[in-house]
Amino acid sequence: MKLVLLGAGNVASHLATALNEKGVKICQIFSRTEIAAQFLAEKIGVQYTTHISELCHDADTYLYSVSDSALPDLISKINRPNALHIHTSGSTEMEIFGGFTENYGVLYPLQTFSKHKAVNFAEIPIFIEGNNEFSHNKIYEIAKILTEKLHFINSADRKKLHLSAVFVCNFVNHLYTIGSELVQDAGVDFEVLLPLINETTEKIKTLSPREAQTGPAVRNDQNIIKKHLKLLKNKRDLAEIYELISEDIYDTHKR
Amino acid sequence: MKLVLLGAGNVASHLATALNEKGVKICQIFSRTEIAAQFLAEKIGVQYTTHISELCHDADTYLYSVSDSALPDLISKINRPNALHIHTSGSTEMEIFGGFTENYGVLYPLQTFSKHKAVNFAEIPIFIEGNNEFSHNKIYEIAKILTEKLHFINSADRKKLHLSAVFVCNFVNHLYTIGSELVQDAGVDFEVLLPLINETTEKIKTLSPREAQTGPAVRNDQNIIKKHLKLLKNKRDLAEIYELISEDIYDTHKR
Repeated sequence: MKLVLLGAGNVASHLATALNEKGVKICQIFSRTEIAAQFLAEKIGVQYTTHISELCHDADTYLYSVSDSALPDLISKINRPNALHIHTSGSTEMEIFGGFTENYGVLYPLQTFSKHKAVNFAEIPIFIEGNNEFSHNKIYEIAKILTEKLHFINSADRKKLHLSAVFVCNFVNHLYTIGSELVQDAGVDFEVLLPLINETTEKIKTLSPREAQTGPAVRNDQNIIKKHLKLLKNKRDLAEIYELISEDIYDTHKR
Repeated sequence: MKLVLLGAGNVASHLATALNEKGVKICQIFSRTEIAAQFLAEKIGVQYTTHISELCHDADTYLYSVSDSALPDLISKINRPNALHIHTSGSTEMEIFGGFTENYGVLYPLQTFSKHKAVNFAEIPIFIEGNNEFSHNKIYEIAKILTEKLHFINSADRKKLHLSAVFVCNFVNHLYTIGSELVQDAGVDFEVLLPLINETTEKIKTLSPREAQTGPAVRNDQNIIKKHLKLLKNKRDLAEIYELISEDIYDTHKR
């Protein structure tokens, strides 16, 4: 396999590092952001370029790990119709490659990647899709190098999966940010919330999230809810967020 | 110490069990819900009653672990002005006891308690407040039996702390519930989200939640956001929740 990696952001960097550790030879990294391309290329000891015209001609696999908005333009410019093309996006259809190449598909790792936090790919579920048997098998082989937790999923369902990931990861993390602001207002360190945060995550390993729900909203304790809304006045949209989630908790549980 | 526990819900049950294990003798449990009172009383081998008129007369400590809405009425009816009165609520002022008794305060354990999930009190931070030195010292003694993680906090700040707990625990858990619905729509088991959920919690042990933020909202990727909103049409208020949180993520990070 002769693989070109397109992208040098968080997902690309973690993928490149993991593939490199598993002995997969990446022949080139492409990114329009020179500093990111250079940093990643040096880290794993490969060539990089910021120009499409300088792309490796004879690679058999092009792995796109760029933002969804950058994908269409990039795909249209690569022009390697005989190679296998794979993107790693949760919300982009596999058919974005249709018309540009014969063999294509998706390798979507369901995880949150941050710059300064290592991840263990063996624990990460990867969701794959291929447009034909050849693509499918090839993508399976690559994903298998990274994890045993392999799943097949079509583009429509992958989009729903990505949406659920936004709720349980990106939005959850934002609630941690909000919590850290509020706890600071109380003159207390954020660390004090960590046992509670831990237990909230631990609980759903043995209870369903529905069963695990506690708090004023599920008890419909309007007394507390009003006090909390008062505290959130003049804090961006936090009162609105509080009200909407509380109402949805109540609606979900009275069903 | 001769202690009466008022309440037999989640918090009361976990507190009673923990105190009992640590050798603190609870002399009586009171709850208007007979089945709960009986269950808890039998579990730790003490008497129970559902009638205020049958309350132990000579107890020196009354520990109220009931819902915030039940507190005022219950306090006004107990009439034991010489005993120490303590509640465990995050959002109720200590002064709710003012006028009813000389010695009072608060013992607020910052944790989420569910019926079928044991907790380790030693890991739980407890926030205490007393109206005078005697109350303060007594409450400190009781809390110290349960945990080393003791903090002093006044009623106003405790309310803010409780509010932040609602965001990082109750609301986070509801996002897990939403995620579990959406992932089911994709034909995928909820378990598949657990590594992502775990990593989201792990990250904030080494990064601040602000630094750990990822996802379409912080990148302001309107392309994905629009796709997600389309998927959420006709799903209760989920589109509205998605939009509000996404906007707040963007607002918070562009600051």
